[in-house]
Amino acid sequence: MGEALNGLKRSLMCGEPRENNVGQKVTLMGWVQRNRKLGGLQFIDLRDRTGIMQIVFGEEINAESFEKAKAVRPEYCIAVTGEIVKRQSPNENMPTGMVELMCESIKVLSESETPPIYIKEDLDAAENIRLKYRYLDLRRPDMQRIFMIRSKAAMAVRNYLNDNGFLEVETPILTKSTPEGARDYLVPSRNYPGMFYALPQSPQIFKQLLMVSGFDRYFQIAKCFRDEDLRANRQPEFTQIDLEMSFVEQDDVMAMNEGLVAHVFKEVLGHEIKLPIRRMPFKEAMEKYGSDKPDLRFGMEITDITEAVKDMDFVVFKSAIENGGSVRALCLKGGADLGRKQLDKLVDFVKTYKAKGLAWIQLKEEGNKSSIAKFLTDEVTENIVKTMGAENGDAILIVSDKNSVVFQSLGALRLELAKQFDLIKDKSEFNFCWITEFPLFEYDEEEGRYFAAHHPFTSPMDEDLEMLDTNPGAVRSKAYDLVLNGEELGGGSIRIHDSSLQTRMFKALGFTEESAQERFGFLIDAFKFGPPPHGGLAFGLDRMAMFLAGTDNIKDVVAFPKNQNAYCYLSEAPNVVDQKQLDELGIDKKDKSE
Amino acid sequence: MGEALNGLKRSLMCGEPRENNVGQKVTLMGWVQRNRKLGGLQFIDLRDRTGIMQIVFGEEINAESFEKAKAVRPEYCIAVTGEIVKRQSPNENMPTGMVELMCESIKVLSESETPPIYIKEDLDAAENIRLKYRYLDLRRPDMQRIFMIRSKAAMAVRNYLNDNGFLEVETPILTKSTPEGARDYLVPSRNYPGMFYALPQSPQIFKQLLMVSGFDRYFQIAKCFRDEDLRANRQPEFTQIDLEMSFVEQDDVMAMNEGLVAHVFKEVLGHEIKLPIRRMPFKEAMEKYGSDKPDLRFGMEITDITEAVKDMDFVVFKSAIENGGSVRALCLKGGADLGRKQLDKLVDFVKTYKAKGLAWIQLKEEGNKSSIAKFLTDEVTENIVKTMGAENGDAILIVSDKNSVVFQSLGALRLELAKQFDLIKDKSEFNFCWITEFPLFEYDEEEGRYFAAHHPFTSPMDEDLEMLDTNPGAVRSKAYDLVLNGEELGGGSIRIHDSSLQTRMFKALGFTEESAQERFGFLIDAFKFGPPPHGGLAFGLDRMAMFLAGTDNIKDVVAFPKNQNAYCYLSEAPNVVDQKQLDELGIDKKDKSE
Repeated sequence: MGEALNGLKRSLMCGEPRENNVGQKVTLMGWVQRNRKLGGLQFIDLRDRTGIMQIVFGEEINAESFEKAKAVRPEYCIAVTGEIVKRQSPNENMPTGMVELMCESIKVLSESETPPIYIKEDLDAAENIRLKYRYLDLRRPDMQRIFMIRSKAAMAVRNYLNDNGFLEVETPILTKSTPEGARDYLVPSRNYPGMFYALPQSPQIFKQLLMVSGFDRYFQIAKCFRDEDLRANRQPEFTQIDLEMSFVEQDDVMAMNEGLVAHVFKEVLGHEIKLPIRRMPFKEAMEKYGSDKPDLRFGMEITDITEAVKDMDFVVFKSAIENGGSVRALCLKGGADLGRKQLDKLVDFVKTYKAKGLAWIQLKEEGNKSSIAKFLTDEVTENIVKTMGAENGDAILIVSDKNSVVFQSLGALRLELAKQFDLIKDKSEFNFCWITEFPLFEYDEEEGRYFAAHHPFTSPMDEDLEMLDTNPGAVRSKAYDLVLNGEELGGGSIRIHDSSLQTRMFKALGFTEESAQERFGFLIDAFKFGPPPHGGLAFGLDRMAMFLAGTDNIKDVVAFPKNQNAYCYLSEAPNVVDQKQLDELGIDKKDKSE
Repeated sequence: MGEALNGLKRSLMCGEPRENNVGQKVTLMGWVQRNRKLGGLQFIDLRDRTGIMQIVFGEEINAESFEKAKAVRPEYCIAVTGEIVKRQSPNENMPTGMVELMCESIKVLSESETPPIYIKEDLDAAENIRLKYRYLDLRRPDMQRIFMIRSKAAMAVRNYLNDNGFLEVETPILTKSTPEGARDYLVPSRNYPGMFYALPQSPQIFKQLLMVSGFDRYFQIAKCFRDEDLRANRQPEFTQIDLEMSFVEQDDVMAMNEGLVAHVFKEVLGHEIKLPIRRMPFKEAMEKYGSDKPDLRFGMEITDITEAVKDMDFVVFKSAIENGGSVRALCLKGGADLGRKQLDKLVDFVKTYKAKGLAWIQLKEEGNKSSIAKFLTDEVTENIVKTMGAENGDAILIVSDKNSVVFQSLGALRLELAKQFDLIKDKSEFNFCWITEFPLFEYDEEEGRYFAAHHPFTSPMDEDLEMLDTNPGAVRSKAYDLVLNGEELGGGSIRIHDSSLQTRMFKALGFTEESAQERFGFLIDAFKFGPPPHGGLAFGLDRMAMFLAGTDNIKDVVAFPKNQNAYCYLSEAPNVVDQKQLDELGIDKKDKSE
């Protein structure tokens, strides 16, 4: 059984002692990183969340403590009291390395079995073991650093928004099933058997209601839920920095949120983001980078060479152009040296993005090579090279298809080439960009109807209003995404606050008046009572924490994450429950034989 | 259709203009509180969350705006631009009452139907109407003030804890069904049909794991859930200020939390709480006030008169004493004047708390009256009066029974008398008190076993450890509640961090090793790896907000509350879902005919 503190107080954290503490008698508490014998002395490295301190035990310092220290093993939790002295051989690699503590008394607060994973930086253990013993995994200094960063980021967010007049308001977790979104998590109701709550995918409707209520500026760091088949870097429950403002237009919301992001990066990392952040319309992002979240840390823009190849006698290009598509290409500097195998791999790569193939031209001093050599005339090649701004030594990589396929495949190829050829030089760069003028709708070919690209409350751009009923696919919206290094950090929109416009929107989405009322009734009703112009944005806090912490694994920034099947190795949730509980809820497990 | 802002920016909030703004041209935006015609002018009171400003429209100020203003009705959302001028007849009751705005241009941003409830302070509308139109209810200035207070309180909490080295860490909402608690809300798993997550009743186990991880100090403002039959002032989802500290004992946790509460009351209300807050052992609280959350704003303590009456020939008292109970009483000053009907009502009142009756003695100049006159000798009466410190004009109100009934009934009677006789003089007083030394266990007579009074991880007091196996009912715990004006504001404990002690605890609670492992396995396992001494506390943020806002209705401090049946009038949650959703989850609604 461990010893009790009995009034013993910690006076410093392990990472704190410095030369100015020399001569002080202090008490430290923490975990034993290692314990070694050296020249008749015992040395313990004592660790807490702030760092590591060297503790010295010796017969002549204190005989009793010296004896006790010999039996102490890694991860024992101990308290030590003694004088801080200057080290004879300082360790420059440790912040506390100039001093050590001469231990006069030690308490073993609790013992430890040998941990199943090492408590050290950059652990290379299997993920399921790390998650099962998460409490030990989180003891590792790199994990602790991440959660200190995340905590600091959340504080910075709240302080900035509070200083700018935002009120924090909590919205319900037990709410109504959302339409038009991903799959909801459901919660059976005991009071109303056969009825269900849903966990929110976002506080969207509630935050808009708060604007109708005149709260003016709202924020919340809110838990949201989606029962999706988890892609990498998704969790079934995730955290959003959610905010909404009244009496604003797009520029106001964007300016406020640039300020927010700049404040957070400054507070947490000391990094200055240059404001204003550049803006790029969706159309430009797609045409130049084949993506609505372009990574702008490197160039290699997509170039339209339709004009240059339009007279070629090559059926693939021809049919793409005739069907309203295009021919576009990337220019890979130095790509003329790629071997056939490498090129074939790139061809295979674009095929996974639905491109039928990848044509290539290698520009060489000794004569060009090309997969479509027999269709190329000198004139066409010259046109292509000129359009691309290419030069000897480069490779031109060409996709022709309908535009959506061209963009998607070349956009992905661009990122793949950046990885293969290490085109991102400054790994510590944070390259921000706003993407604006998103399409209001996306057409779903399977269902044969339009869906809201953002959500059904997003306002169309004033310029495009007249096309809402006639040509919905061409209508742009007042939506904006903030993109960082090719990832979406957050997104939002100006909302519709006009009932008649909202009605037109629902109509364009194929809702009848009844179905709209059934699904969104309380928001539609609220908008009858003087709603203010309003708009907002939501950031993924998990994603933001990943950037701030420099990790690309979302599980690193979630204290108790679930796996791809939404299973928790630690608590073993989900699990079975008593039949009595199900009876009370008026539900039954489905017979598996059905 | 409403007019667009088109670049128009708000320059002040409605509650801001003062005399030093006179001569400035400003733009205000908000809602029309009222619109009246007076002497050829139109006056609109414009409201936003900060206050109300008078806007003047006239033919000579701006003819077009004057015309538009005439058509404006209450709760229209408008923007007005014009010059601030000094009022000829100031309104001392409004902060902006010295000035008004001469409106040069007005935009009607959106129109409003006549609201179903008045937008005004102290609304006397039916609760279900207020909740159905919550977005309008929240537009009322008194509701807006409450949510500004709540937001401010949450910020003050976080800033204090952050400044004291606490890290904010989020714990899961989709987790494992809790043992030993209230009923859980369940969430069916799609990936594991027939299995369920549970929504957390508190982050208890996770925060203890964070201590094992070495996070040292943790906090979270956390959503918690209980599927209970709702008593008044309960909500199915509620918010806790949850915190935990390592390397501490009871005094450390209490001191930190006193500081927290003092900071919040100072920041939000400017109120100074005198520290340290007084402490009272559970036993004393029960004996003096018949409650573990005593209201100390008034005296009238319970007095034990067992000794004074022990020789009385009155079977009711006698049998109570013989059965290990006691005879105790309250002294109501001036109670000698109570009529028979009033006394009878008090007798009925204590019966609802399981007392068999209430004996009374009225001390009068002209001779005492008593319900037990025939059993009272002069000597016994004198003994009782002396023990009570009573005097002429008082009433002595006596209950005899086993102690638990005596305490509960007299404790309730004490509060009832305070209400009836207005014994709490200073309604604005905040009277704090720590209750300590709680019993570790409560005995459940129905189930015939002990339950953890707090939770199974609460540490026994060192002095009582040896009774853990032999006399569990007498063991006190290192648990503490913070009580304010007779309500529990928060509570916590020092936790067990020793595996062998935890094992004894589970045994005392009647768990086998297997059942303990099955329910708490991952915490038991974690404690094998050097857990630090730790303890914590959780405050109810909703309750705290109620005190800060001066309301006794929890629905006033929850933006979108549910009713007693956990139903939301606004969103109409819970509701039915598609059979397809249930199929995916592997559950069925129970056939009602079963």
